[in-house]
Amino acid sequence: MPRSYAIIGTGALGGYYGSRLVEAGADVHFLLHGDFEHVKREGLRVEAKYFPPFHAPVKAYGSPEDLPPCDVVAICLKTTSNDLLPSILPRLLKPDGVALVLQNGLGMEDVAAALAGPDRVMGGLCFLCSNKVGPGHIVHLDYGGITLGEYDPAGKARGITARLRAVASDFERGGIPITLHENLLTARWHKLVWNVPYNALTVILDTTTDTLMRDPHMLSLVDSLMREVQQLAAACGHAIGDDFVRKMQDDTIRMKPYRPSMMIDHELKRPMEVEAIYGNALRAGERSGAAAPRIETIYRMLKFLDARNQAARRSCGHARPAVRPL
Amino acid sequence: MPRSYAIIGTGALGGYYGSRLVEAGADVHFLLHGDFEHVKREGLRVEAKYFPPFHAPVKAYGSPEDLPPCDVVAICLKTTSNDLLPSILPRLLKPDGVALVLQNGLGMEDVAAALAGPDRVMGGLCFLCSNKVGPGHIVHLDYGGITLGEYDPAGKARGITARLRAVASDFERGGIPITLHENLLTARWHKLVWNVPYNALTVILDTTTDTLMRDPHMLSLVDSLMREVQQLAAACGHAIGDDFVRKMQDDTIRMKPYRPSMMIDHELKRPMEVEAIYGNALRAGERSGAAAPRIETIYRMLKFLDARNQAARRSCGHARPAVRPL
Repeated sequence: MPRSYAIIGTGALGGYYGSRLVEAGADVHFLLHGDFEHVKREGLRVEAKYFPPFHAPVKAYGSPEDLPPCDVVAICLKTTSNDLLPSILPRLLKPDGVALVLQNGLGMEDVAAALAGPDRVMGGLCFLCSNKVGPGHIVHLDYGGITLGEYDPAGKARGITARLRAVASDFERGGIPITLHENLLTARWHKLVWNVPYNALTVILDTTTDTLMRDPHMLSLVDSLMREVQQLAAACGHAIGDDFVRKMQDDTIRMKPYRPSMMIDHELKRPMEVEAIYGNALRAGERSGAAAPRIETIYRMLKFLDARNQAARRSCGHARPAVRPL
Repeated sequence: MPRSYAIIGTGALGGYYGSRLVEAGADVHFLLHGDFEHVKREGLRVEAKYFPPFHAPVKAYGSPEDLPPCDVVAICLKTTSNDLLPSILPRLLKPDGVALVLQNGLGMEDVAAALAGPDRVMGGLCFLCSNKVGPGHIVHLDYGGITLGEYDPAGKARGITARLRAVASDFERGGIPITLHENLLTARWHKLVWNVPYNALTVILDTTTDTLMRDPHMLSLVDSLMREVQQLAAACGHAIGDDFVRKMQDDTIRMKPYRPSMMIDHELKRPMEVEAIYGNALRAGERSGAAAPRIETIYRMLKFLDARNQAARRSCGHARPAVRPL
């Protein structure tokens, strides 16, 4: 019998990976909110760079009560919608099921663990460029690999488990490149090395990665911010090498002009994942006695911009549910 | 015989103070650039909040060669135009004359001293809201007091000299409130406590002082930035009290919504005084072994924005002389 998956949040990320799991032969259940009626009627549509177009009826649900308990519950919500999880996650998880956190930033597995128990959580870091362009319609632009690891409440290495390999094999059958990591949190800290400078600076300065990397002052600030991530991670017991920091910069210089998802959220005045990426990293460092004054500076600027965006949304009469990716 | 003044840069600041010196009975010579023909023909016009309107012919010059040597040469240029000083300052200063630096930031007296000699420089910190609204037409909005002090190459206290009192008396006869300070550089560091956070944050976040002071994250960041100024100043031998830092914040909370001049420069894509205010403060601290990572972060952001503004100006075909305030 194929493994069953619940996809919580069928947006640019959940829709893409869900469609790949369907193609892999898994039993996939999609939870939707605003797009439910559309997908029920028209099916889910995913145009992916490396696969034939996907446009098919799927098992779509408008309410968590309607889904069956699943082996794997993939949390594909933006972290800013995590207040929805308590009413969703526990009921969708089989007793021996596992929550798979496919979210950005740090500490999101802790949220899932509080609801599902620490032994029923794994996490994945998605390297993905994908957009939702209309109701139930996703356009995948590039990349898509996932780094998977088991959750540990103390951030220790948990090694590669059988269930981790099982989940990996489903994604791989769907054509998704998977890397298994012995220590999920170490992997998450590594990802922050890129996310911390580029998300914030593109938002605050309204620019793209290539323009940043052509400016001598931004080269210097990007480097300083990456070093601060490195220091916070080290204080928390996760070593990040200098060569990795250098590679992130060199790769970005060679990359095509890129607008990180936080920049797109900012432009559309959607909530930005400031706490998941910045707030949690700063607090983790603080608990270990490490300071990061430059990261704190950009964190506070992002908080100011995020609050202004949400105030502007409210004054335009946007109701909150309309912005939920669910 | 009245003291003679040369006003280098007849803009919002030079035009305002020059008109007050004319009213005080001083012999005032105005150096102009773009507005020369207009002022020659129509006179200088200054509408000031606390004085009757000034609209009168003045001694206007379009070239530094035409001015007589003066007792006091008031440098009212923006610091970003200081490359003009070598061809102006030495020729306009009488042998026993003094350069009066009425510019923003730190280290501008050093520039004047290199041209005029260290014993022929004093400085003034202007607390002024004034705009140039048209050719030779200045509208003064509020404030206007000046803190005057003698320059010392090592930043030591020089006390209150006779010539400082003499210059002060001319301004005071023109209705300008004057404070004399024993140590000019200590006064300049104090002014940076306000300028460093508010100039940068209003520019980077496109907002006004009142909005900043209503946001908890900005309250925190403003405080941290002021503390870093305090630490840089302390490393350079200038003590700034905690009560002063607190007063700057309390005063700003009570102030009407305010757009610092750097924000106006940014909006008009005019060069911003980033080096005078931020670069020189950081370098002074660095020479004394003090770091200020938050100030460095906003400095680099301002440098990026300033470079982008100037690139945009160039691509719009603005020739550089048109932006000079001279």
